[in-house]
Amino acid sequence: MDDSFFTDFKIGIAGLGLIGGSLAMSFKKAGFYVSGYDIDATTVKAAKECGAVDEAANDPRAVLDADCLFVALYPEDTIEFVIQNAQRIKKGAIVIDCCGVKTYVTSRLLPVASQNGFLLLGGHPMAGTERVGFAAAHEGLFLGASFILTPSGGLPDAICDKVKTLLKSAGFERIVVTTPAHHDRMIAFTSQLPHLLACAYVRSPCCPQHKGYSAGSYRDVSRVAHINPELWAELFADNSAALCEEIDELMKNLSELRAAVAAGDRAALTSLLHEAHAIKDGVDLES
Amino acid sequence: MDDSFFTDFKIGIAGLGLIGGSLAMSFKKAGFYVSGYDIDATTVKAAKECGAVDEAANDPRAVLDADCLFVALYPEDTIEFVIQNAQRIKKGAIVIDCCGVKTYVTSRLLPVASQNGFLLLGGHPMAGTERVGFAAAHEGLFLGASFILTPSGGLPDAICDKVKTLLKSAGFERIVVTTPAHHDRMIAFTSQLPHLLACAYVRSPCCPQHKGYSAGSYRDVSRVAHINPELWAELFADNSAALCEEIDELMKNLSELRAAVAAGDRAALTSLLHEAHAIKDGVDLES
Repeated sequence: MDDSFFTDFKIGIAGLGLIGGSLAMSFKKAGFYVSGYDIDATTVKAAKECGAVDEAANDPRAVLDADCLFVALYPEDTIEFVIQNAQRIKKGAIVIDCCGVKTYVTSRLLPVASQNGFLLLGGHPMAGTERVGFAAAHEGLFLGASFILTPSGGLPDAICDKVKTLLKSAGFERIVVTTPAHHDRMIAFTSQLPHLLACAYVRSPCCPQHKGYSAGSYRDVSRVAHINPELWAELFADNSAALCEEIDELMKNLSELRAAVAAGDRAALTSLLHEAHAIKDGVDLES
Repeated sequence: MDDSFFTDFKIGIAGLGLIGGSLAMSFKKAGFYVSGYDIDATTVKAAKECGAVDEAANDPRAVLDADCLFVALYPEDTIEFVIQNAQRIKKGAIVIDCCGVKTYVTSRLLPVASQNGFLLLGGHPMAGTERVGFAAAHEGLFLGASFILTPSGGLPDAICDKVKTLLKSAGFERIVVTTPAHHDRMIAFTSQLPHLLACAYVRSPCCPQHKGYSAGSYRDVSRVAHINPELWAELFADNSAALCEEIDELMKNLSELRAAVAAGDRAALTSLLHEAHAIKDGVDLES
């Protein structure tokens, strides 16, 4: 690796919410020069005061000279931000969008990147909480987490390798490289379905009475119903086909279990639960 | 309260698994004399060696002279244990079955209790883990947890009150008193559905590839797929009607969300997610 690549290397973060704020803190901690932009002046002030950034403004120009620009905004805002600022983004810079859907965003931004002389790389930091905004950001959010990269449009492998090095220095444990389509399929299962499920689950008439009748399994399945509605409505709609496939798969499996429950068929239930246990165990043991 | 009630009061625990073992430790810690029974001699030995019990044997007679006998076995085993030992259970003793389903078990045991001169009280300690057996038991399992009591068959209030005092001394934070039927309906939602859901969820073809693509929401919804198949097959089958109602409610809510996802209808999705967030927030704020 050419170490000179990171000499005088400037990182920009557009959007200082939970993800952007935590990225800023992680890169600052790793010793990088970090600039930040947020539409909200109070957030900019907070980020500067706590030292999460070296400089910040509620003007996009604060981050457009970055060598690596992370865009940590909602999907539609990300597309709009990149298009509106495309001509002023540093030539040759790497722009990493951090959206939770990749096909939808990448297909809209790749032509913008090639027309304006910067490199686009899809990214997705795999961490989060049910809380939102800069106040929830912290420098430990990504420790042990993975970061998914979805290079496309002929991005050179060498650029991807440099970004991997950069992300590892910020604390990400594992960098996964895949296609936008495979990312979207996997995320529909690992992240979007649990969020949608939590929202469906809490709509039961029993939910408001749960106190005194609930313990860990209720808490875990309902946790992410404390959702950011605007963000997740975008993410669900922008990954509609893959998410519908996963909902259908779940409903099929629920129906099979329901049939055994309705019939009071203990043998069938035991067999289905053994299968689930074996899958979960197999997945755990790979850890 | 008549304090003399607990003088020379002996607690018996039939079944020294996760729940029974933890109950034994909790009552020992509270200063009670505790006897234990388990079908497995190794478990009996382990419970004695670590001081979880004052005495124990793999013979039911070890616990039949208890003033309060907790039966912490699977539902069918609980019914069988009580029926087989009914004549030798101390007259006037309180027998608390700890099964996760109450209507099914209570309806079978109430006549046995009245015919044999002991008192039956349905109970359900609301704590657990995805691990099983005495090795997973610990004296802190019930700290902060609730214990649901489902008195029926004309059990005197005074008995219920004494059991409440007993349970609070063992670390239970909240004692909920309700009917067997309401217990079963609530538990179908708070506990059985999350377990069934976790088992349905991990059957997706995406599950074995989740590593690198998953974070907290995947972990939480899949956790209890590490299930005890034999126990939960019984619990599901013995609460079939209530559980089917909850599965149907969930599938209805999933279908509504699916329709909005399939249509890419952000406005409808935003509205549905706002509703879920408000429910979850309302429930949290009551904490």
